[in-house]
Amino acid sequence: MKATQLFTHSTKEIPSDETSKNAQLLLRAGFISKEMAGVYAYLPLGLRVIEKIKAIVREEMNAIDGQEIIMTSLQQKELWEKTDRWDDEKVDIWFKSALKNGTEVGFGWSHEEQITNMMRNFVHSYKDLPQSMYQFQTKLRNELRAKSGIMRGREFVMKDMYTYAHSDEEHQKIYDKVTQAYLKIFDRLGVGDKTYLTYASGGAFTEFSHEFQTITDAGEDIVYLDESKKLAINEEVYNDEIISRLSLNKKTLKKVKTAEVGNIFSFGTAKSKQLDLKFTNKEGKEEYVVLGSYGIGITRLMGVIVELFSDEKGMVWPESIAPYKVYLAQLGQDKVVLDAAKRLYDILIKNNVEVFWDDRDARPGEKFSDADLYGFPYRIVISQNTTKANEYEVKRRDQQEANNLTIDELLNLLAR
Amino acid sequence: MKATQLFTHSTKEIPSDETSKNAQLLLRAGFISKEMAGVYAYLPLGLRVIEKIKAIVREEMNAIDGQEIIMTSLQQKELWEKTDRWDDEKVDIWFKSALKNGTEVGFGWSHEEQITNMMRNFVHSYKDLPQSMYQFQTKLRNELRAKSGIMRGREFVMKDMYTYAHSDEEHQKIYDKVTQAYLKIFDRLGVGDKTYLTYASGGAFTEFSHEFQTITDAGEDIVYLDESKKLAINEEVYNDEIISRLSLNKKTLKKVKTAEVGNIFSFGTAKSKQLDLKFTNKEGKEEYVVLGSYGIGITRLMGVIVELFSDEKGMVWPESIAPYKVYLAQLGQDKVVLDAAKRLYDILIKNNVEVFWDDRDARPGEKFSDADLYGFPYRIVISQNTTKANEYEVKRRDQQEANNLTIDELLNLLAR
Repeated sequence: MKATQLFTHSTKEIPSDETSKNAQLLLRAGFISKEMAGVYAYLPLGLRVIEKIKAIVREEMNAIDGQEIIMTSLQQKELWEKTDRWDDEKVDIWFKSALKNGTEVGFGWSHEEQITNMMRNFVHSYKDLPQSMYQFQTKLRNELRAKSGIMRGREFVMKDMYTYAHSDEEHQKIYDKVTQAYLKIFDRLGVGDKTYLTYASGGAFTEFSHEFQTITDAGEDIVYLDESKKLAINEEVYNDEIISRLSLNKKTLKKVKTAEVGNIFSFGTAKSKQLDLKFTNKEGKEEYVVLGSYGIGITRLMGVIVELFSDEKGMVWPESIAPYKVYLAQLGQDKVVLDAAKRLYDILIKNNVEVFWDDRDARPGEKFSDADLYGFPYRIVISQNTTKANEYEVKRRDQQEANNLTIDELLNLLAR
Repeated sequence: MKATQLFTHSTKEIPSDETSKNAQLLLRAGFISKEMAGVYAYLPLGLRVIEKIKAIVREEMNAIDGQEIIMTSLQQKELWEKTDRWDDEKVDIWFKSALKNGTEVGFGWSHEEQITNMMRNFVHSYKDLPQSMYQFQTKLRNELRAKSGIMRGREFVMKDMYTYAHSDEEHQKIYDKVTQAYLKIFDRLGVGDKTYLTYASGGAFTEFSHEFQTITDAGEDIVYLDESKKLAINEEVYNDEIISRLSLNKKTLKKVKTAEVGNIFSFGTAKSKQLDLKFTNKEGKEEYVVLGSYGIGITRLMGVIVELFSDEKGMVWPESIAPYKVYLAQLGQDKVVLDAAKRLYDILIKNNVEVFWDDRDARPGEKFSDADLYGFPYRIVISQNTTKANEYEVKRRDQQEANNLTIDELLNLLAR
């Protein structure tokens, strides 16, 4: 992609009510556009990040036999009445509207009810189990306040998976498999070492649920973590009993601020009972299906990653999800320099290196500042000097020093 | 994918209120699930079709410099008031709700207002033009009636593109380029010969707009078409004047029922004036941007394709968007036969042939009937006889006759 073909550009003017660092940087770089508090559109560079995060999550969900589907935003009131979650007193984040005939409808903030109800068409016998299905869904939640940028939106993308098992043992196996898949995902996204499997409240259904909490001051949660065991306890369930149950030592636990980037949850048979999802077991008797639910906030993760990996100059994307790997900039509009840039641009594309060419007729300072703001892993500068030396100036976004490389050295570095 | 791993299966029980052929077949095959009238979830096989249609559309939009983005469902009232389309008297398909503080919000049924408003941040000079951006958006429309299955939904996926030009001439060039891209898309989707560029009403903004209308009795439109010139006139603007202007002959025009699968529309500068989108021209003077809008109904197209390509036994997918290319079925559970099926399954995957293996322990009749219902282009049967002969029985879904092929002949046929 060339900068002169991209409709977005960096800007210093951002909405005055935008207080979060992630949204400020993403808006300045033209990765997102603000519709209203907590509601953001994703522009070409931002959408590329989202799609790369989704691709990684999709790979890991498929690897544990997840089947991708897409449920609907419009939801029936009746289902949620059965589980007593339609009333605004019970769930205070509903967006609701009505069909022309007056029938009330809700806009999906979660999808367990829908999917579990649908599964009544597909689960009859123990042979139909276990099953795991997931979706990337745009969730709508009528949050009272929305001031954490894309980390807590009124409209956001979530990967939610639901699993159906015929017994607690089978469910536990799946639950453990998803836990491992989640840890792998956070590793691949570059936040693995800052993300902790965390014991949290299980609500009405189980004693505990598990969250994946990433250390960042931009988060809204407090956890107590054990760095060596890579375990944490959410303050909401933090007490001596759980500390001893997890064989942790109170003295070595660190209290930190975190953002929840994923959660996994056992419903047992509670939800299946409410929605009447049964199967016939090997003995021919009816039993209720054991249900699990597993979320990863896709857009939230993007926000957390911006918060974690940024400096005073801008964003610093992990290579696995950077919009482009290389920010290529030629200095000046000299034909020799422009030709050299064009040549390298073509070579990189041919070698499957994702490259963004800042081909604008702009001052070097402007290009350097955008390169830092956008935060692609490598910056390559082509000037009269580098052209004469038949070299390329290469700098990693997360390092200070630049190096001059030959084309072979450069391709060796990038085309992996 | 193996049938025993897929959570969906075919069924004869479909909602009694479902009158459209496309939804009946898709529900019977487990490609979709009905939430309410006009609101359908897409299950694994159905989602694969959607994603393949999107991939083709994306390729063609990128080829004409379209830049992919994703706008939001939640929309501000203020914007739509500026263009006088907020009032339910003016637009009767709004879903509306309210934020916690009482602020009314709308759910996106269209996105011209949003995108045009956003472009005010990015378009300042003639150098910033032209630009084309598109999205695949889930649109929400509060339709009074919804009885055409996925052809007219209350929730559906649309590809909408918006183009911004500095002059009518530049706009016309883009408009023509999009027209050609659309024709190419419909060709690639297998509906090219039944899809006509159609003159239709231009509404308040221009004399005419263009629609892409596909001949099907399931459609809701009437057009008069000239088969040799591959042009049509929507009955809403059909009169002697336009017939002569298009150099058509009234006597050779055929009146047919069609479904609108795409439309392209020139707004001129009307929308830019309402939303104050200006640029500075070469002479330093301010002008309004010329706007075009271009839609393709992704889920609607899927429905139209089911309507067009189906017979009494089920669906018949064009190869370009079939969920899988091959429906592989072994007859019986004999070890020799199962092994042969497993071997072929692995070979096909290794050769990048998308294969669905009906590995169930089920009667042959059940497998044949599902193969016909699902409508993948090729059915391969492995039986004791074919195994003995070291051959594979291959039948195209759109042909009656089956042939026995060797593995080389088979791969030659499929691995293209």
